Amino acid sequence: MLKVKRQVTMTDLETSMATIIAVFQKYSEREGDKHKLKKSELKDLLHDELPELMAHVKDQATLDSLMESLDTDGDAECDFQEFMTFISVVTVCCHEFFEHEDE
Amino acid sequence: MLKVKRQVTMTDLETSMATIIAVFQKYSEREGDKHKLKKSELKDLLHDELPELMAHVKDQATLDSLMESLDTDGDAECDFQEFMTFISVVTVCCHEFFEHEDE
Repeated sequence: MLKVKRQVTMTDLETSMATIIAVFQKYSEREGDKHKLKKSELKDLLHDELPELMAHVKDQATLDSLMESLDTDGDAECDFQEFMTFISVVTVCCHEFFEHEDE
Repeated sequence: MLKVKRQVTMTDLETSMATIIAVFQKYSEREGDKHKLKKSELKDLLHDELPELMAHVKDQATLDSLMESLDTDGDAECDFQEFMTFISVVTVCCHEFFEHEDE
């Protein structure tokens, strides 16, 4: 489904990094600047690709606030670096959750 | 191979995030503090899981310097947050490479 151009076998970690890039591109290429997510593209990405997280984001105000916090350079769009920072924060939160679950 | 505890179906993006956590844990649990990578665990992780990247890190000095740059809190070990920051930087670099490749 996602286009990950490689001939050689990738490790699980390399595949994960390539998938994050491919998911971003799948949505950023839809409209306007193909290297950035506009608000509607980000909303679709979050709903379709992070449904577990979005179950906790019920209202438009929370989504607007999330979009604002992602958009660190203030251009009302989310570039890949901003998206990757967001994915990092969410992954670190998930890791902390599972770390405490194990104890 | 990697233990990702979930009953429900995860999206590709969710699976990628869970895989990054699982890869970190696979190595951090080997010795000492099971929530942190010591230098030998990080070295094994980089060699086994990021072979494409490590092909460019030929000497011990470069590896030492990489380890130091990852270890932002100076405890000579790499915690998950430090690891995730590293993965982000590498992924953003890969994204920039592929972005320019497309043009």
